[in-house]
Formats: sequence, structure tokens, C-alpha cells
Amino acid sequence: MKVVKFGGSSLASGTQVEKVFNIVLSDPERKIVVVSAPGKRYSDDIKVTDQLISLGEACLAGKTIEDELNAILKRYSLIAEELQVSSAVIDEIEQNLRSIMSQDKNNPVLFIEAMKASGEDNNAKLIAAYFQSKDVEAHYVSPKEAGLYVTNEPGNAQVLPESYDNLYRLRERTGILIVPGFFGYSKEGDVLTFSRSGSDITGSILANGVKADLYENFTDVDAVYTVNPSIVNHPKEIRELTYREMRELSYAGFSVFHDEALIPAFRAGIPVQVKNTNNPSAPGTKIVNNRANTNGPVIGIASDDGFCSIYISKYLMNREIGFGRKLLQILEEFNLSYEHVPSGIDDITVILREDQMDEETEREVIKRIQMELHADVVEIEHHLALIMVVGEGMRHNVGTTSRAAKALADAGINIDMINQGSSEVSMMFGVKAHDEKRAVQALYNEFFASVLA
Amino acid sequence: MKVVKFGGSSLASGTQVEKVFNIVLSDPERKIVVVSAPGKRYSDDIKVTDQLISLGEACLAGKTIEDELNAILKRYSLIAEELQVSSAVIDEIEQNLRSIMSQDKNNPVLFIEAMKASGEDNNAKLIAAYFQSKDVEAHYVSPKEAGLYVTNEPGNAQVLPESYDNLYRLRERTGILIVPGFFGYSKEGDVLTFSRSGSDITGSILANGVKADLYENFTDVDAVYTVNPSIVNHPKEIRELTYREMRELSYAGFSVFHDEALIPAFRAGIPVQVKNTNNPSAPGTKIVNNRANTNGPVIGIASDDGFCSIYISKYLMNREIGFGRKLLQILEEFNLSYEHVPSGIDDITVILREDQMDEETEREVIKRIQMELHADVVEIEHHLALIMVVGEGMRHNVGTTSRAAKALADAGINIDMINQGSSEVSMMFGVKAHDEKRAVQALYNEFFASVLA
Repeated sequence: MKVVKFGGSSLASGTQVEKVFNIVLSDPERKIVVVSAPGKRYSDDIKVTDQLISLGEACLAGKTIEDELNAILKRYSLIAEELQVSSAVIDEIEQNLRSIMSQDKNNPVLFIEAMKASGEDNNAKLIAAYFQSKDVEAHYVSPKEAGLYVTNEPGNAQVLPESYDNLYRLRERTGILIVPGFFGYSKEGDVLTFSRSGSDITGSILANGVKADLYENFTDVDAVYTVNPSIVNHPKEIRELTYREMRELSYAGFSVFHDEALIPAFRAGIPVQVKNTNNPSAPGTKIVNNRANTNGPVIGIASDDGFCSIYISKYLMNREIGFGRKLLQILEEFNLSYEHVPSGIDDITVILREDQMDEETEREVIKRIQMELHADVVEIEHHLALIMVVGEGMRHNVGTTSRAAKALADAGINIDMINQGSSEVSMMFGVKAHDEKRAVQALYNEFFASVLA
Repeated sequence: MKVVKFGGSSLASGTQVEKVFNIVLSDPERKIVVVSAPGKRYSDDIKVTDQLISLGEACLAGKTIEDELNAILKRYSLIAEELQVSSAVIDEIEQNLRSIMSQDKNNPVLFIEAMKASGEDNNAKLIAAYFQSKDVEAHYVSPKEAGLYVTNEPGNAQVLPESYDNLYRLRERTGILIVPGFFGYSKEGDVLTFSRSGSDITGSILANGVKADLYENFTDVDAVYTVNPSIVNHPKEIRELTYREMRELSYAGFSVFHDEALIPAFRAGIPVQVKNTNNPSAPGTKIVNNRANTNGPVIGIASDDGFCSIYISKYLMNREIGFGRKLLQILEEFNLSYEHVPSGIDDITVILREDQMDEETEREVIKRIQMELHADVVEIEHHLALIMVVGEGMRHNVGTTSRAAKALADAGINIDMINQGSSEVSMMFGVKAHDEKRAVQALYNEFFASVLA
């Protein structure tokens, strides 16, 4: 059994929904379909979800709302007309929206939650109606009916563990189940949404719940690339990568997924297949727990700038039990999250995203480190980029470090920092931000130029 | 003005003391001479300090002690006879030892402290007498007279800041001042010793106190070597290195000095010259605050085995503010001191000396990390060696990393870990312990084989 999720751009118009229909029908294992709200049809189009937020805010402000309401209904109607689905479903959607709008508004946050979630909810109804109109057995299944319970955290709801047993029972249902993404219900019966990319989260939870063989995630790219296409022209695609590799890559700008979305599937060991709705015959990229290493030690290269380093040295620091812990404690008290902590014998460098600190915070942090840790030197360096060279194959490959370092040296790039832990699934190089693109290109040339895609 | 310190092997016999005399007299700047107790004359000889500890323990146990006492007096007498110094000084030493032995023994720790310190104290008297017998103006100066006050920590006394002003007044004294190393006096008048290599500490404190131009430290090696001579045959000598380089090297087995010994000289910016009593014309090695880089990027290579790594991975660890701090807190609660903490995105590796943990502690540590941090994986790997490639010149030298990594790769050695912070004065490679010697040899060949000594 496969759980298949389609994003907003895959459902933005009747033409797109037809593609979805064909994709789902082409494989009888595709039993559970998770849908987003209709997304953008062209680059300055407005997503239905954003229209719903405007409508909700207008309601709360006591303004007239008929124009906003009609604009939303129009989006659904256009899709329904294009697909020749009976307008009864549009009446149902209008009724549903008017019913939400007439709800108690004493808790405006919960009101907006319900309004936002209706985008996915009503789209699921529309798509189920379309499948039915084509004589396919399909059922709209609401998260409430499925038993998808979540915590009471608006915009950041967390699945409650008991949901998984409820969801397992979906296996007994016949036909294709169309489930709206993005939200669940609290035990009190309120609608609560997940964090961003919430439909990915729903798909991942469902894949775990029904113990799917595969979680297919349809987007609008053919695959995950070995390197950012805005840095290297036409980079090679990745066919298969592990969860760990995906995480290491996505960390530095490779965000096909919002990472948290995959946790439920990851925990259940379910592979995720990234595919393109607009090019479903492309092989896509598969994210797995383990893979054979067939393509050289490195699977991808990611990079990001906007980092700074705090360098601290103190004679005999190495002898002081607790020095590192006290340093991290100070950063924690400023609510600063750090990335890496490379160290020498008597020095330690903390690498963190520089947008976390304004000049005043910076001064305060330096002062506290000097005062409380009696450091000899505390220096901040700005405008650094981190480059992650990622690949499970590095683990057993003598010489990967040497190749990477040589590629950078040959390109005349100074390595400010290196960090490679014993997991050996990645290697981090810190360079000056202005060297970032040249560094990535040099590493790509070293590891991929001669490898067939 | 120079402060000159001689170790135990430089003072083990009359012949050795004569060398010391000639060295001191050959440079009129050598005004303050710090002496150790007589050391070993041959490899299974007994140091006077160890004899004194036996004598002290016998006293505490109420045993007869004349044999032990005579053995010690014999060491001093042999030196005095060889140097043709009047036996009056031996009588003085005997009187001093008998006076210590008759002291109050209610505090056995302080009793042993006084007994141990007498080795240096009486040797200083003997050497002053020898200088005087050669018609040189020389004075024995006790730490009490000099105002060298320390904290009340037996075996680990710390200098009190007020001492430095007292010691500055030694500049006004005429002649050569012979000062015993290894101990100071508490404000209550008790003798308290420094930690190991205590005479180096005394010399360093005196150099700071009198604002010496140079602190000369005479030992029995010609120089600090670029690499451990037990791994590489006849390695090149280091002419000049910085305090930071010395620290990074000494960390992993390069212990010419007990590191803490140099803090007072380091804080005052006083260079330290390492020389050989048995070959004083050899140029030796100078430790300075800053040096010109003339000899390639790397100044030395050090290594040590006996490390282990604790590898911890957890999906989305990177998002958890406080994860690293909590981890270090757990280690601190087990009183474990760690060396480095290289990290990936969702994993972190802690490298520490493995002799700190027995199997039970290991199990406890793993359990707490699993329970409290909810880690997905916690693994300990044993039998690791760390190799430090050290040099201030690495900072501005594109390609040093590449050369080092390539040398290791060419030797077929897998790099388990790399750590290089933004100080760039050192680069750490973690390898399997059984690869340590080959790795050091490969790096030595890369960085030194073609460089003239």
C-alpha cells in the first residue's frame, strides 16, 4: 500500500487534478491520497490558503466578506467546471465556509485555524467528487473520522501517539481514500494545523499509521539534485539517498522537505519517493534508511552563507572541566542556537547563524564570555559560509577528505574550519562567504564531473 | 636579566654542577638560578626527592631512620667532595633535615611537604657554597626571604599575586642568587610544593616577578623536536615556536614542559629558551609569543593514543537548543573531561581519554545519554589515536589541509575525524590507534622531509 501526497501546485487547476487522477489510477497500490489546498497557477497567483486567511481576518474585523468568499468559491468552481464535476460539491463547500464563518469567534486563533484548514478539507471533498464522477470508488475521509488527533498547539500541532492505531484501521476501507492534509483535531474537537508544509506531515503520519510500503510525495521538481542548480548548471540528479543524507543536505538550503515532516515515516522505516506531478515518468529520488553505495563516496554538496564564528582562546582551557558546557550555557541563555563547535587544545570556535545576533547582543555575549570564563581572546568573525559534503560512502573511503581539500586548495580557497565527526556521513568546510560559490563548483567538479548521472 | 633553571639530571653529580657553574658564569645576564634537587646519575638511580619521601614516611611510621637519613646526606656529600666544597655545608644540611624530622607531625601532609621541599632547598645551599668557594658572589635565597607566597594546597600550591611585587625586589640584590625550585610558603609559614615539574614553575614565577628578558630552562635534550624521536628517526629540531604551538604539541606527548609551569612567563610575555646542560653550545629551542614563519606551514606533529569516541545521533538534533550543553553536563557529572566535539547536523561525537571510564561508567554514561537526551544512537568506539598537525603558518596557507589529508590517504590511512577551528594553529586527525605511527611518519615525510633543519 502506498500513501501519495500532492502539493498545492499539483492541484491548482482542473488540468493539474486530471494529472493527479491519472497518477493515482496508474498504480493500484496508491490507496491513500493526501491533498493540499489549491496552490498557485502562475507565479503571482494567490494560494487559496492565503485567501482564506484574508477572509478570516475580515470576518474577525467585522467587515463585509462576500467578495472574499466569492473569490474563494470561484477557485473551487473553476476546477469543478474544468473537470465537469457537479456543482453540488461547490454548494457543499459554500455551506461549509459559511458555517465556519458563523462560528464562535471568542477564540480568534482557533477561528483562523478552522478557516485555514478548510482549504485542504474542501479540496479533498472536491477531488473525491471528481474521482467518483469518473466511476472510481473514492471517499473523502476527514481527519476526525480517521482519528488523527493532535495537541492543542495552533500552527504547530503535534500528532498524538494514539492516532497511529486509529489510522491503521484505514487499511480496512475499500476504494481510494482522499484525506485533506495540514490539520488534525484536538481531543476537544477543535481544528489545529501543523507547521509549514503541513500536508507533508499528514502524509508522513498516514504512511506510518497504515504501515505503507512507500510514501510518495509529488511536487514540481523531477528529483533532488546533487547540488544547488543556482550555483552549478544542470547538476546531476540523486536517485537514492538516505534520511541522514537528506537531513545533512537539507540543512544547508536543499529544502525539498520541511525536515520535521518526515519524522513519522522515518521512525517507521518507510521510504519516501519524491516525484514530479508534471513528469511522472521521471524516476525521481527515493529517500531510504539504507542504500548501496554505487555512485562514489559523495551524494551531494550543500552550502549556505550567513554564518559567523565566535573564537575563544584561553591558555590551558583544555584542563578546565566544564569550560565548554559553561560556554554553551551562556549561548543558551541568549537563546542562540549554534551549529558546530570545532576546537583546538586551548581554543574553541562556535559557529552560528549570524542573523540571531544584533550588534548589542554580540557585545553582551562577548562581555559575558570574557567576564565569566576569563578568556584570553574572544573574537567574532562574520560573513562565513558552510559547505557540507555529504555521502554515506565517505565512511569507508580513504581519501575523500584529501580530494575535497585538494579541490578547494587548487581553486585557491582557504579553509577556515573543518569539522568531521565519527559518523562520517558529512564533512563540513567553513570558508569566507565570498568564496562559497567557487568552492561548491570546485567540489562538484571533483566529485561529480566524471560520474554518470 | 635572565632567570636560569636547571633540572635534577643537571645537578645529579659534582661533574654536572660544574657544567652548571660554567654555564651561569659564561653570561653575566644569568643572575637568578633556580635549582632542582639532585636527580638520577644513571637510569636506575634514586632521586633525592624520592629518598626524602621514604624518609618522611618512615618518620611518620615511627621507624628507625638513620639509614635513610645517611643515604641522603651521602648524596650531598659526594657532590660536595667532588667539588671540594667545605663539609660545613653538609653539617648545615644534616641539621636542617634533623630539624624538619623533629617537627610537629600532627599534620602528616604538611610534614611530607616540608620533607620533600628540603631536597631543592638544601641543594640550593650546597650550590651557593660551591659558587662562593670559587670566589663568585653568590647567595642562597629561600622562597620565604624572596617573598614567594602560595596557596594552602599541598602538592598543587598556586602562587599568590602579591608575590610578584616581592620578587621584583630581587633585582636590587647583587651577585648570583641561587633559589630552590618546587615550593613556596603559605601566609602561615608552612612549606607547600607545586605540582609536578615544580622547579619549572618556580623559574617561570621568578622570570615574571623580576621581569626577566629571558627564562632559560636547561634540561638534557638539545631541543624540542618536530616529531617524537621514538616514531621518526632523527627528526628535525625546532628553533623557535610560539607558546600556542608548544601547547598544542605538548598536549599529545611532547612534554618538554609541564604546561602550567609556563603560565607566569607566558602572561608576562617572557620568552623561554630550552637548552641542554650537557651541550650548551647547541642552539636549543626558543618559545615566544610571536614568530616569523620561515619554515613552512607546519612546525611539528604530535600524536597520542588512548582515546575513545562517544557518537550520538538523533534525528533533528540540530533543532534542539541546549542539546550539546546537556550532553556536556552529563559528562561533567561523571567528572569526565573531553578533548573535542566534532559534529554533523544531527550527530555529535565526543572524544575523550578512554582511561577515564571503566566498563561500568561507560554503561552508565550511555544509559543517561539515551534516557535523558532520547538519542537514536549512542555508540562508543575505542582505541583511537589523535594526531595534531601544528603550526601558526597554517593560518595563511591554502592547501595545508589538502597536503595532510593526501599524505594520509596515500598511506592508506582512513581519517575517522577531523577538527580544525578558526584559530588554525592546529589540525586534528582522529585515526585508529594501530595506524598512529604510520600516520605520523607519512605526515612528517610530507611536511619535513624536504625542509632543511
